[in-house]
Amino acid sequence: MTEPHPILGLDDTVHQRIRLGILALLRSGVAMEFGVLREQLRLTDGNLNRHLKVLDDAALVTARRSSGRGRPKTWLTITDAGRTAFDAELTALRALIATAEQP
Amino acid sequence: MTEPHPILGLDDTVHQRIRLGILALLRSGVAMEFGVLREQLRLTDGNLNRHLKVLDDAALVTARRSSGRGRPKTWLTITDAGRTAFDAELTALRALIATAEQP
Repeated sequence: MTEPHPILGLDDTVHQRIRLGILALLRSGVAMEFGVLREQLRLTDGNLNRHLKVLDDAALVTARRSSGRGRPKTWLTITDAGRTAFDAELTALRALIATAEQP
Repeated sequence: MTEPHPILGLDDTVHQRIRLGILALLRSGVAMEFGVLREQLRLTDGNLNRHLKVLDDAALVTARRSSGRGRPKTWLTITDAGRTAFDAELTALRALIATAEQP
């Protein structure tokens, strides 16, 4: 009972529900458009922007604006650090689930 | 891509890192003493109390004070609603992990 509890391996920057969803959607490495992320996660513009700012400040995602015809669009991509952080979260979650599944 | 993303099944009351740890430790149904929870999760008294209050307000855990010789102790127990909520969280987390593991 003295080994570290799995939640000690969770980082609130990544673990927060909406940010976890953003990183999960971006995990494959394919850039996603702002509006697509917003729809998938059922968010408002403001709420998605707020969480993207946290992830951008932590260098876990990057944003790129495309111009051209029509409204400019924002494309989000996970960074290498973001992928590493997300994978560490999954490892901690798997450990948590394994602990909870013990009889 | 139109089915609900797994994070939509997460409830912030349960998902928050420390509260997830508290519920995981209590999940078996055995009562745990405040100080033991605090040590396992490496928390201060104030921080543990704050999260226990959120869980108590949501009727997910209950507290009982024991008296007798020495300092009174507080014992925490998960409620049926707490167990249901924690199990729903695990189901959503398993779905999230499965999604992330897709090639």
